[in-house]
Order: sequence, then C-alpha cells, then structure tokens
Amino acid sequence: MQKPRLMTPGPSSVPEDVLLELARPVIHHRSAEAKQVIVEVAAGLKEVFQTQNDVLILTASGTGAMEAAAVNSVPPGSKALVLNAGHFAARWADICKAFGINAVMLDTEWGQPVDPAQVAEALKQHPDTACVMGTLSETSTGTGHPIEAIGKIVAQTPALFAVDGISGVGAMECRPDAWGIDLLCAGSQKALMLPPGLAFISVSPKAWAKIDAFDSKSFYFNLKSARKKMKEFDTPYTPAHTLILALRTSLRRIKEEGIENVWTRHRLMSEACQAGVRALGLELFSSRPAEGLTAFRVPEGLKDGDIRKGLVDRFGVTTVGGQGKIKGQIIRIGHMGYTDEIDVVAGLAALELVLHNLGYKLTPGAAVTAAQQVILGHKPAAVSK
Amino acid sequence: MQKPRLMTPGPSSVPEDVLLELARPVIHHRSAEAKQVIVEVAAGLKEVFQTQNDVLILTASGTGAMEAAAVNSVPPGSKALVLNAGHFAARWADICKAFGINAVMLDTEWGQPVDPAQVAEALKQHPDTACVMGTLSETSTGTGHPIEAIGKIVAQTPALFAVDGISGVGAMECRPDAWGIDLLCAGSQKALMLPPGLAFISVSPKAWAKIDAFDSKSFYFNLKSARKKMKEFDTPYTPAHTLILALRTSLRRIKEEGIENVWTRHRLMSEACQAGVRALGLELFSSRPAEGLTAFRVPEGLKDGDIRKGLVDRFGVTTVGGQGKIKGQIIRIGHMGYTDEIDVVAGLAALELVLHNLGYKLTPGAAVTAAQQVILGHKPAAVSK
Repeated sequence: MQKPRLMTPGPSSVPEDVLLELARPVIHHRSAEAKQVIVEVAAGLKEVFQTQNDVLILTASGTGAMEAAAVNSVPPGSKALVLNAGHFAARWADICKAFGINAVMLDTEWGQPVDPAQVAEALKQHPDTACVMGTLSETSTGTGHPIEAIGKIVAQTPALFAVDGISGVGAMECRPDAWGIDLLCAGSQKALMLPPGLAFISVSPKAWAKIDAFDSKSFYFNLKSARKKMKEFDTPYTPAHTLILALRTSLRRIKEEGIENVWTRHRLMSEACQAGVRALGLELFSSRPAEGLTAFRVPEGLKDGDIRKGLVDRFGVTTVGGQGKIKGQIIRIGHMGYTDEIDVVAGLAALELVLHNLGYKLTPGAAVTAAQQVILGHKPAAVSK
Repeated sequence: MQKPRLMTPGPSSVPEDVLLELARPVIHHRSAEAKQVIVEVAAGLKEVFQTQNDVLILTASGTGAMEAAAVNSVPPGSKALVLNAGHFAARWADICKAFGINAVMLDTEWGQPVDPAQVAEALKQHPDTACVMGTLSETSTGTGHPIEAIGKIVAQTPALFAVDGISGVGAMECRPDAWGIDLLCAGSQKALMLPPGLAFISVSPKAWAKIDAFDSKSFYFNLKSARKKMKEFDTPYTPAHTLILALRTSLRRIKEEGIENVWTRHRLMSEACQAGVRALGLELFSSRPAEGLTAFRVPEGLKDGDIRKGLVDRFGVTTVGGQGKIKGQIIRIGHMGYTDEIDVVAGLAALELVLHNLGYKLTPGAAVTAAQQVILGHKPAAVSK
C-alpha cells in the first residue's frame, strides 16, 4: 500500500468535503444559487485576508493576480522597486519587463529576509517609485519577509505596496489594512485548501485611486471590470465557479477555526518542522522561515533527488527541491492548509527513515521527538474568533 | 423532487466519471504523473481540434484565450477586421480597444450568418488587415457562421484568422488546418464536458511566424512561453491541473465516440430541437443555427422570465435568455457535450408543458413528436473513427 501525502508548498492537500463539492453536478454561473455562493465567499475572503477592501476573484494561476496588480496600477515607463529575494520575487521583475515597467532591483541573498531599512533607503534614492513589489512568503526559499515593517515604510510614500501572498495568505499573519499592503495576491492551491485555478487580489483605496487615474492596457485582468462585477456579486466572463463553490466550504472551515487560530497552527507546524530538521543535524535554508513550508539544505554526500524519491516511493510523501540557482541544494516540505501538527511529525518520521536508509547518520526518533516537544511546549492560547 | 437538467449553452453538464476525477486527492503539478496526463491530453486536444498544431492550455476563462490570440499576434496600432454579429463577436472589438488594436467592424445583423463575400470585400478595402476575428458558434444568438468559407478567403491574404470556437469546438465540424483558422480558441465548459476554468488555443505556423516576429506585451498569456513549456508537456505557472486530469477523461470519451460522430450527434440534437421548437409555432432566432444550442424568439404575450422560471422550478431545466440588445427577446437551450437526443426530447417536453400552463396555444406532444421524427429519420451513417 502507498498512501499519498502531499507535502509540497502548493498545491496542498484539499479536505475531503471540499473535494466532494467539486464532484457535484455543475450549476449555471449566473443563477441565483451561484450568486449566493459569491456573496458568502466575498465575506469569507475578507476575513481570511483581514481586510475591509474587496477581494476580487480571478480565474487564473496566482501569477495572474500578480500581473493584474502590476498592469492595472503601474503605468509603462514608471518605476517599480522589486524586493528581489527569490525565484518568485523575480517574477515581479519579469512581469515589469513584459509590460515596460522600469524595475529597480533591491537584491537580497536567497534565504535571507528583505531588510526594511534597505527598502527605506531605496525609496529615498528613488522617490519616483510607483510601486514596491514584495513577497509575504517566498516559496522558493521558505522565507517569510517582514512585510509589516516594510509596509509601514511604503505607506509613508506615494508608492503602492504590492505583495505576492500566494503561499502566505492563510498561513501567516497578514493584515493588509493595518500594514499598508495595497495589492495583496493569493492563489487557491495553498492555505486556502483548494486545487489551483483561482487567484485573489485585495485592492486598497490608495491603489484604486491610482488604478482609476490610469487607463491601463488590460482586459481579462482589468480590475475595474472585476470591481464593477463584484459589486453585483458576479465576475466578468465565465469564472471557474465550481472552484468558487468549493471555496465556500474551505472558507467555512477557516471561519470555524478562526483565522488567528489558523495562523497559530501554521506557526506551530513550522516551528515543529524546523525543530525536527535541526535535531537531525540538518541546516535550515532560511534565516527567517516562512510558516507554510520549511526548506533545509541537502546534507553533504546525499542527493536531493534520492531523498525525495525515497520519501515518495516508500511513504507517499511528496516534497519539492530547489528552483533556479539553488536547484539540487535544498528540499522543501510544505505544511499549509489542510495539515496539522501530527502530519508534520509523520513527515519527519518518513524523512528520518529515508535519510537513515541512505546512510545518513542520525538517531532514529530525534526529529519526531523534537517536533513533539515543540507541540507539547508551545501550548498556544486559543485566540477568540 | 426536482432533478437538475443543465440545458444552458455553457456551462454544460459534466459526465459523472469526469466529476469524480475532480474529487480525487490532489497530486503535484510537476510530478511524472501530472506530465503523463498532459502528454495524453495534448494528443486528445489535437484530435478534438482536428489540427496538427499544438493546442496550448491556459488556466483562464475562454476570454483569456481570445485575449491571448489578440495580444500575441496583433501589434497595437495595426488593423483587425471584426466579424461583428453578436455579443461575443463584439468581445473581440472590446479586446482590440483595450490593447490599442484598430478594429474595423463588419456588422452583421444578430441571428444572421456573416457573409463570406462581404469578408472578401472588406479585405480588399483593408489590405493592411493583420487579423480577421470571427466566431464559429455565436452563443448569444445561436448562430453558426460559415467559418470554412471565410477561412479560405482569409488564407489567401496575409491576415491571420482568429476564431472564437468557445461554444463551437467539439460541437460543430471545425477543421482549422484545412479551413485556414490560425488561432482557434475554446473553453472547458462547453462541448469538452468540464467545469469552467481552462481555455485552449491552437496556433498555426502562419500565426507563429507573426507571433515570433513580434515582442508582444504579454506575460500570463504569452503564447511563446506556453509553447516552450508545452514542448516539455508542462505549463507556465501552476495550472488548474485537476481540471486537466478531468479533461483526460472527457477526451477519452470523445475519442471513444469519435469526433465526427460527436459532431453528427450535435447536428442531430440541433435539428431535433429546431424541429420541436418550430412544431410549437415558435420562431428560431437564427437563420443558420449553431449546433450546440438553439435560440428561439419569446412568443408574443409571454415573458422570457416566466417561461425560464417555469422550466427550472417545475422540471429543473435551466436555460438562458438573451444578452445585450436582445435581452428578453429570446430563450436559448443548450445541447452540447454530455447530452444526447433524448435529453433534447425531454427538454422539449418540459417546454411544451410550461408554455401550455402559461396559456400558450399548442398541441401537447407536437414538439416531442417532431423531434422524435428527426431522430428516427435522420439515421446518420456511423463515421469510422
């Protein structure tokens, strides 16, 4: 028997009741029933995003929401400051290049968090910056960036702050209204516990002012059209409405647990996973780990492919390796969405056994025990919903 | 009891085995298993599209494929001839406007087919046309346009021929390679028997030559990126891969039936539905009906909303009304994808009963009998696969 355990940093596991929604007979997307689903989902998304702003729904990969953020609010020829600290942060630069936006790169070593003081300095050097483009959780390095501190700096300038929250929203604390995030992007296949196919974007009043003042060259990703339709609890074009129906169920789960408790659970899973990995003498890749995934360096003498193949072939545990310039150097374990602390312990147990079989010296049980100790000791106070 | 019968011209019913694929545990989209799905789906799409060209997969509504066709191949400032004969044809013009393409409108009365001779004449008047933008099946009016004849005219010019086949591909005969269609767009939620969320586009060598010669401002919908990834049976960004998995099952169904038999079935459903509607003294809206839906005028003295409400409330039959300038004037019945001739008869039976209850004079059984006679008499020869 091989039991699948999807422990990648997206797509993540989808709860059984959410999957079953997807198997329901299809309804019409302009029916009263479909509209009622959007009414409920619109409220649920605001809660997960912790925002008073509308959260718009796009039928696209998360990258579609990033493109929407850029093309609607940053005119060609104007300047964007890209907080370039990983593979996905670099996507902001690729988007800028495609649409003639002048990207100024603030490079940070992969695995390190962006330094807010450097952002402040860069904004002084480039006072004409139209948009700062950052990342809440850099999926390629497993790093959580100090978005609150950066947001409060950007908020004091005329620049917008666009944040890729694709693997962060719903996994890590994020408060766009309080933190000054003007455009926050998310995808369905991470902490929102759905298959891929939907993207989300929240838009602040500061961003709307820029968007409304600019006749952007956009159609499918035109946010003004999406806003207009969202006011009627509708979408432009035919949305992936069966995914929206399933989203209702996953949002109900999040509401039931309470978003702050969801964040706490992810922090606990993250700390447990980090403790387990360190107990095996492995090195974390990031100095400021994200909370939806853990990245560690492949130990000397072993190959990432052998470890990952052992995990999936013997125990069904799917993980991913490094991307771009760190391909082969790291392994990333996802623990976001429909995952609890014991899933993390189970994943660590599999990792121990596979490493042991590959000849890596370890004390069996060390990772598991370390993770359990975190779970026991952490005892986070339940946060009222 | 109310049994749902989705008879809208998209989304259409999804077969039970396809729905169950969507309820399977999610796998990773870069796994060998996911790649194997794309290998099979790539071949299946070529068969449904009847093309030797790659059919690229986009995570988007069908409109996303239309935008991709336009932005990748038609530079801003150049000229497009829009075959403007309905609500969705007009979407081509909206896309042109958004991206600075100069749209020349060839207007045709809604419900009438575009006249190929007029297209030839317009191309003589506008020899600098970069792209002709047309529609295989105009969903808003239920009209099938003579795309073969038009394609053969466009093929003799330097212009590309982009066709919205969203409600046409898989429902009506369409042979892009033989007919000279350079960019053919489709969506998942019509004759391909899936929920919405995926779009498809086939690209001819003539179109690739233009696309390759033009550094288009596009990122998410960049067709060069999609082509590059498709060569490795992959997609740029995270696709809606559970929909692609389900697509494999629906494409297997189409392969089993044979695409030409699928077209024959749709033609038969269309003719049966038309005969039934006419037998009730109702007037078809289109002079050249499409084969995936039938549109008829609301009879004098009745309201479209009352008829549609009666259909859905009493018999679960969901239909749609008119869009844009013909709102309230027509009712559209979809019969595409996972629908057979007896579904059409059942829909007509419901229509008879509802019209009768609303006081419309008819002979009960007239529509049903007329449709049955078509089914009996048509006896299409099975086409070898």
